[in-house]
Amino acid sequence: MLYLNEQAIRDAVTMKDAVNAIDTAYKLYEKNEFQMPDRLQVKENDNTLLLMPSIIEGAIGTKLVTIFPNNIEHPTLHGLVILIDSKTGQIKSLIDGSFLTGLRTGAIGGSAVRNLTDEGVSKLAVIGTGVQGLYQTIAACVEREFKDIYLYNRSPEKIPAFQEELRSWLGEDIRLHAADSREAAVRNAEVIITATTSDNPVLPDDKELLKDKVVIGVGSFQPTMREFPKSLYELADKIYLDTDHAIEESGDIIHPLEQGWITEEKLENMASFIAGSKKVNKEAGRSVVFKSTGMALFDVVVGKLVYQKALEKGVGMKLD
Amino acid sequence: MLYLNEQAIRDAVTMKDAVNAIDTAYKLYEKNEFQMPDRLQVKENDNTLLLMPSIIEGAIGTKLVTIFPNNIEHPTLHGLVILIDSKTGQIKSLIDGSFLTGLRTGAIGGSAVRNLTDEGVSKLAVIGTGVQGLYQTIAACVEREFKDIYLYNRSPEKIPAFQEELRSWLGEDIRLHAADSREAAVRNAEVIITATTSDNPVLPDDKELLKDKVVIGVGSFQPTMREFPKSLYELADKIYLDTDHAIEESGDIIHPLEQGWITEEKLENMASFIAGSKKVNKEAGRSVVFKSTGMALFDVVVGKLVYQKALEKGVGMKLD
Repeated sequence: MLYLNEQAIRDAVTMKDAVNAIDTAYKLYEKNEFQMPDRLQVKENDNTLLLMPSIIEGAIGTKLVTIFPNNIEHPTLHGLVILIDSKTGQIKSLIDGSFLTGLRTGAIGGSAVRNLTDEGVSKLAVIGTGVQGLYQTIAACVEREFKDIYLYNRSPEKIPAFQEELRSWLGEDIRLHAADSREAAVRNAEVIITATTSDNPVLPDDKELLKDKVVIGVGSFQPTMREFPKSLYELADKIYLDTDHAIEESGDIIHPLEQGWITEEKLENMASFIAGSKKVNKEAGRSVVFKSTGMALFDVVVGKLVYQKALEKGVGMKLD
Repeated sequence: MLYLNEQAIRDAVTMKDAVNAIDTAYKLYEKNEFQMPDRLQVKENDNTLLLMPSIIEGAIGTKLVTIFPNNIEHPTLHGLVILIDSKTGQIKSLIDGSFLTGLRTGAIGGSAVRNLTDEGVSKLAVIGTGVQGLYQTIAACVEREFKDIYLYNRSPEKIPAFQEELRSWLGEDIRLHAADSREAAVRNAEVIITATTSDNPVLPDDKELLKDKVVIGVGSFQPTMREFPKSLYELADKIYLDTDHAIEESGDIIHPLEQGWITEEKLENMASFIAGSKKVNKEAGRSVVFKSTGMALFDVVVGKLVYQKALEKGVGMKLD
């Protein structure tokens, strides 16, 4: 049994590996070569325990996550991914689920950048500079040569530490800009990533500011959470989803459907989009939207890759 | 995060500690001071993954178990217990779930011996000498001074290794007898433990052989499994259950209810029995029956104790 902490995961795989694994997961999803029972959710007051199993060829994965939104001294999310050999039932690996979640969620955004943006894009806006925002930015920069990154957080004092952490990953060549407002952050960007758990839209409700963008939302994973304003839905011909569960899980899909801002025909699963090798046909003045809520299939596919690479490279701690 | 393998668990707690923890769990069950959502079961062919969460004061426990019944080279059961701090959501401990399951299931039997048998009993029969049979026997011997133990297995060649293992736990003073038949095993015993996953009764269907006994069944955990014959139900005034779920889970309760051999009035929950500080009123010629199918509450209560004792004694491996 191999224990893989954050450092071991970082030694085992690159963000590029993780983005590739996400695209692999989309292919399994499209071909229906997986099992993914409904996640088991246990609530106590505001706190949640999620148990997320998924089976693919060779591996049974279970992600266990706790979300304690009122934590101040500790992170709000803790997790573990347990990887099981599907031939013997033996537990092969225990993987830090907090970091793996960040890595795979970053990679989901990275895959969206890979599959939905033009190759020449160079300006990125990131709304929300928490842990998820960090991995999103790293993954985006693995896929495209961004030169300018505009950062916005409602608590601006958090930006400098984020910039420093980002520099340790991306080097000194990229220009990082702390934006004074959400408007300033998105104005010049070609790609916008939102990574907050806000209950109200974090993008300005202004078509002029949101047109001709690729917008990637990874924050809203519950019905009460919303990052996207009404204007964005009017600009989008398609809203790409990483999983059809987003239709029940995210306020960014539930709310506009309820309000009649969109119909289900506008939603397209990313797996079938990629399988169809389609190109995004974005007309001038329109925008492209991607919404992720995540699923256990991603965790098991990325987790299996991490484990295999860790074995090859001899990293991790062996437990008996 | 503290990793506790079999040796660390054995260094941290005694079987007596575990039996005490089971009685504590019954008290929580009776006072309803716990949460236990339905277990999540994932099937692939004959193989099963079970996710069993339970919450008590201070701890969120999840047991993950795989059951691969066709395994030959590997054990059929593998498991992990994940213990989480219910104040912060942090994962505090990862505990070998195979050994912990054996320990707590042994302790469930031990608690039944403690609460249902006369103090002077000295003769024990064990049907099924696998891993569960081992822990059952150890726990029974913690609670009563058994002098003679009669062992039966349908594959008699497995008995010598079992005897050797048992001696390493119980010492040389106890007389171990390899019985030629199930009849021979139970004839002189006052207490009988069945620990098989048989689909057909493993006790002889003979009232003369089964009367005046305390019978403890821990093997049948699925509707197709049965260890008890019809005669036993006729001899029992009460059938004590470790959890009401046994009524849906075990063939030893489902089948006799369907056949009309018993009615639900005959079933009594062990938690309310213990809470009532009742004594078993067994008339001459009658028998007492206890049936266990286990539940996640036991795992979290025993797991929490193991973790606390391990911390006190400084055993286990710290993972970052």
